[in-house]
Amino acid sequence: MEMDYLVGVLGGMGPAATADFIQKLIELTDAGSDQQHIPLLVSSIPDIPDRGACLLNGGLSPLSALLDRLQMLENAGAACIVIPCNTAHYWFPQLKAATSVEMLNLIDMVAQAVRDAGFSKVGVLATDATLITGLYQTALEQFGVDFVIPEGAAQQAVMDGIFALKAGATESARGHFEAPYQYLQQQKVDAIILGCTEIPIALAEEVRNRPAYFVDSNKILAQAVIRWYERKTGKTLLRPSGKKLS
Amino acid sequence: MEMDYLVGVLGGMGPAATADFIQKLIELTDAGSDQQHIPLLVSSIPDIPDRGACLLNGGLSPLSALLDRLQMLENAGAACIVIPCNTAHYWFPQLKAATSVEMLNLIDMVAQAVRDAGFSKVGVLATDATLITGLYQTALEQFGVDFVIPEGAAQQAVMDGIFALKAGATESARGHFEAPYQYLQQQKVDAIILGCTEIPIALAEEVRNRPAYFVDSNKILAQAVIRWYERKTGKTLLRPSGKKLS
Repeated sequence: MEMDYLVGVLGGMGPAATADFIQKLIELTDAGSDQQHIPLLVSSIPDIPDRGACLLNGGLSPLSALLDRLQMLENAGAACIVIPCNTAHYWFPQLKAATSVEMLNLIDMVAQAVRDAGFSKVGVLATDATLITGLYQTALEQFGVDFVIPEGAAQQAVMDGIFALKAGATESARGHFEAPYQYLQQQKVDAIILGCTEIPIALAEEVRNRPAYFVDSNKILAQAVIRWYERKTGKTLLRPSGKKLS
Repeated sequence: MEMDYLVGVLGGMGPAATADFIQKLIELTDAGSDQQHIPLLVSSIPDIPDRGACLLNGGLSPLSALLDRLQMLENAGAACIVIPCNTAHYWFPQLKAATSVEMLNLIDMVAQAVRDAGFSKVGVLATDATLITGLYQTALEQFGVDFVIPEGAAQQAVMDGIFALKAGATESARGHFEAPYQYLQQQKVDAIILGCTEIPIALAEEVRNRPAYFVDSNKILAQAVIRWYERKTGKTLLRPSGKKLS
């Protein structure tokens, strides 16, 4: 089986975010037939201890479950592994150290994309857990980009929205993001990082209407995977930005 | 790793249909958290010889590639394997014979669902290749359901629509299905089987507006997977039909 460039997706955190990532990867791939699409092996085995509960309350660590799934993807022949979940990137260094397979870091990709787009001040919508790890703060500082994070009730509303979405309530999830969205707009940010892979699902319409204003971490990761595959194969597959699918 | 009830998805035929299947499986699962979702391992490795070219023109058989991916899912611990592609079910008997893992047959599930819904005459939108195998005709006869298949230009339009979708042109794909849709309506069918997993993607809006009229094979397969998982675990996870996600 031709699997030299098989991309392993360590997903399930949550399952909806993983499905959204795959969807975006396919939409962004300029393939003329089934066979030209990038080969994927997707683990969406969601029985992984809650990342937030671990980071915020000292709950069970997800690391062991993450290592199991990493090993499974490696055993199956993955040549590159990505994780469509922002919070899980807290364990990225340990996962990377445990495998010889190449891994792409979602947080770094997003910070770099924001810098490359010329934004000087961005808002960050992310889980409490992602924020407490300082993942985005560190990466954005490295790339020299100022940032604003919602405070108090506005940040609580972000969390409510994410949990509503994980429970399947897409419509009510959307409403929760209204307050943090207003908060960041008042701070006059140039763009908003959707720093949790669940958020673009709830805000799909807003993102469609203002694609340059929202930085969708799943979309950035999908583009990074396509560029990785292009480098490996010499093919051109990344759909030109703004090209209409019709 | 808890993988006793891991569901293996032999996909990539095409990748968009696989993503659509995963999306529907997640939406139909009444889970209150990430961890309650059904564990999936998805092979979307699309370098599989074209099923239609094989069945219609004696092209390379996809069987060897299908067996490779089946083996990979079995090795990774799948307890049940499904194939979100109608045409590939021509090789279902050989695949089933090659594995000790349980497999759910999409075509049988659809024919049974149509019978259970009380439809006496249905239209079938499917690829030339699926139709030439007689998969649906045989299954529908077994369940005592009459059927109509578009002829001539109307069937050619079905094929044009499917290939447009596989090439990423969702909007123009939709237009191609207008003629076969009219054809089947004139034949006064009770419902239309979308017997190619690409079609519900092109007709998403039509299906949303008339959910009882269109039988979406990906949705039927997703429901079958959830029921399989419920039987194995004793959990209740199938979202009640018609329940609004809000």
